[in-house]
Amino acid sequence: MNPPLKIAVAGLGTVGAGVVRLLASQAALLEARCGRRLAITAVSARTRSKDRGIDLTGVAWFDDPVELAKKADADVIVELIGGANGPAKAIAEAAFARGRALVTANKAMLAHHGTALAAAAEKAGTTLGYEAAVAGGIPIIKAVREGLAGNEIQRVYGILNGTCNYILTVMRESRRRFEDVLADAQKMGYAEADPSFDVDGIDTAHKLAVLASLAFGTAVDFGAVSIAGIRNVSPMDLDYADELGFRIKLLAIGRRTAQGIEQRVHPCMIPADTPLARVDGVFNAVMVEGDFAGSTVYVGRGAGGGPTASAVVSDLVDLARGARTPAFGVPAAKLAKLQAAPLAEHRGRYYIRLMVRDQPGVIADVSAALRDERVSLESMLQRGRSTTEAVPVVLTTHETVEAEMLRAVDRIARLTSVIEPPCLIRIEEL
Amino acid sequence: MNPPLKIAVAGLGTVGAGVVRLLASQAALLEARCGRRLAITAVSARTRSKDRGIDLTGVAWFDDPVELAKKADADVIVELIGGANGPAKAIAEAAFARGRALVTANKAMLAHHGTALAAAAEKAGTTLGYEAAVAGGIPIIKAVREGLAGNEIQRVYGILNGTCNYILTVMRESRRRFEDVLADAQKMGYAEADPSFDVDGIDTAHKLAVLASLAFGTAVDFGAVSIAGIRNVSPMDLDYADELGFRIKLLAIGRRTAQGIEQRVHPCMIPADTPLARVDGVFNAVMVEGDFAGSTVYVGRGAGGGPTASAVVSDLVDLARGARTPAFGVPAAKLAKLQAAPLAEHRGRYYIRLMVRDQPGVIADVSAALRDERVSLESMLQRGRSTTEAVPVVLTTHETVEAEMLRAVDRIARLTSVIEPPCLIRIEEL
Repeated sequence: MNPPLKIAVAGLGTVGAGVVRLLASQAALLEARCGRRLAITAVSARTRSKDRGIDLTGVAWFDDPVELAKKADADVIVELIGGANGPAKAIAEAAFARGRALVTANKAMLAHHGTALAAAAEKAGTTLGYEAAVAGGIPIIKAVREGLAGNEIQRVYGILNGTCNYILTVMRESRRRFEDVLADAQKMGYAEADPSFDVDGIDTAHKLAVLASLAFGTAVDFGAVSIAGIRNVSPMDLDYADELGFRIKLLAIGRRTAQGIEQRVHPCMIPADTPLARVDGVFNAVMVEGDFAGSTVYVGRGAGGGPTASAVVSDLVDLARGARTPAFGVPAAKLAKLQAAPLAEHRGRYYIRLMVRDQPGVIADVSAALRDERVSLESMLQRGRSTTEAVPVVLTTHETVEAEMLRAVDRIARLTSVIEPPCLIRIEEL
Repeated sequence: MNPPLKIAVAGLGTVGAGVVRLLASQAALLEARCGRRLAITAVSARTRSKDRGIDLTGVAWFDDPVELAKKADADVIVELIGGANGPAKAIAEAAFARGRALVTANKAMLAHHGTALAAAAEKAGTTLGYEAAVAGGIPIIKAVREGLAGNEIQRVYGILNGTCNYILTVMRESRRRFEDVLADAQKMGYAEADPSFDVDGIDTAHKLAVLASLAFGTAVDFGAVSIAGIRNVSPMDLDYADELGFRIKLLAIGRRTAQGIEQRVHPCMIPADTPLARVDGVFNAVMVEGDFAGSTVYVGRGAGGGPTASAVVSDLVDLARGARTPAFGVPAAKLAKLQAAPLAEHRGRYYIRLMVRDQPGVIADVSAALRDERVSLESMLQRGRSTTEAVPVVLTTHETVEAEMLRAVDRIARLTSVIEPPCLIRIEEL
């Protein structure tokens, strides 16, 4: 009989309690699959007395999670506290300093310190598992790192934040404003009290930085991610998207280009008949393009106690089975410095919505601004008519260079007939 | 520097040549990812002189693939010959007898001998890799065996044969008959000269037997798979499916039920708005339902040199990295005997198309037959009217028991006004 894998869990929120519950309910199954027991030996959380509906009999309690990482009788520390620095980072460092493996769901920490943590794990002869950090229950890290290991990855993109996808889905279906839908999502527990990390695209960017590193073999570079969230998406834009045959999704896009690696997070117009356009509500989806496998798509629940616990446990099973793969697919020292492709040189199509005074010559002025920056117009829609209120004018362009597009929009914004900052959304060909 | 992983490839068809090409073009990448080189040391194929566009300089040639398995200087034998028995099986046995790992794309062999081969690999202290046997470029074996290892799998189903999916897609789009579309598919190389394994559902059933074993921890039991192919699907049924809000897909379905494990392959009506309904052409898709992860979906190319080579190489990368997981997730000796759920007790909805003489009383007779077997009618469509020709009558039922449904159809078939054998297609709630 092999000795059990001894597990210490720091953090007993939804995910931590889910991990404890999963390991208890699947104990026999996991023992058969791993050839040894997966045993929780220690836990740490803020409040000892709280009823979490889990049995912690015989499990050591630590008030201080860093003490747990240092002193628990454990082969692996599971860090489920979160935050780029603070206790989470101290736990990781303490674990590696003692040659213990770390399993974490902490994308913020990985986005800021991923390469250093991977190096520390390797130096300690142990591993860093983070399947739970990206796309919840979808085993996307394993798919890219192992399942597609024979491929050079050209592009990886997807819907990585269930809160944003839920809000955009409800906005589209109900024609309600962002602020109202967000408030409801907060009431239902789909959005945090402080929603900024989600709706401003930061959480998505954390995950993209991690995924891009793994896909492209580059050091994690969160600073190189261009980020825009969904606060400025209006029900009007969702309507126009439908009319033009698109859906609006907050996408994370990582791409290998001749100029370097592109990493961007922003609302996108995507063709309504592509697989990602149909991924609605809290679901996540990731598309990976490999040079031999072609495109593969992965869809599932991106958050929640069950799916995230499933991901954490997949890392624990790997450990128990003795599988040992470098965190980002190659040894940390071999991760190339990421050369960021300048977004100004990005080529693509664009959607622009203007709010204008309905007066003669507006369209001529707008068209001239586009022409002067060599932006070629694809379509123009001017639906409403009003002598008193602003009316929307919607334009789409042919492929153009981002820098020229931005200069054209800047010219347009300065026209006296244009009375709100233009809304610019990139159209992605997927 | 670690010693290279020495690889002998038996079979240099599309996939074998793809593997050689992939290993050559990604040599540096793979060395970085594995910490050692992946080196082809020997190959075997039927014709030595054929130009395959690959460089075999310095690679040993064997005319006999079994000799290659026995005598090549190799750590792993890659079997890409196919067939449930014959040389493929002899290669596998020879490899394990010498403690060599086996990587194979051979679903027929696994469906018939999977459990015994897994046991032989374990006895020899080596591994059996078969990522390429199911769903081509989609890393579905790894996802189920490792990525979802924390879950008890309730259900696994999908589109596992690109030829059938292509034919059904073209039939639906062009309203052409099966025979015509098949002939075209054969001309274009999407279907074999002998299409039976594909269109009669056998290839799909092979893959399902393998996937079910992995998902449910049961011994591979191909004999327990209920199989029907797509020859009897008519353009008329595809039309009615559209009208009723369905698509017709050849699905492989594995399900854990109170009566045992259900394994079936047959054309299904599935709601048009489910993810699988939109997987068209040669693509494959698999849905896996786990008790913690929930539903996850995997979509990609199910065949072709590049995608299948990608899958073969993922197994080689695992070997090179030293990962070692039992072929079916648990040691072969722990695979439970599969208790097959009797299909007669299956509960579901059904689509029935009859060709009838358009005369008074037909619907009353059909309704009476259904009532007598306690089958509850959900909808009825009788579109055409003709005094000379047969007209179609289409019925859908509420949930009912398969045995009762079959008895009702048997009664209906014997009505004098019903002039063709009824077409019965199961409706799947996905």
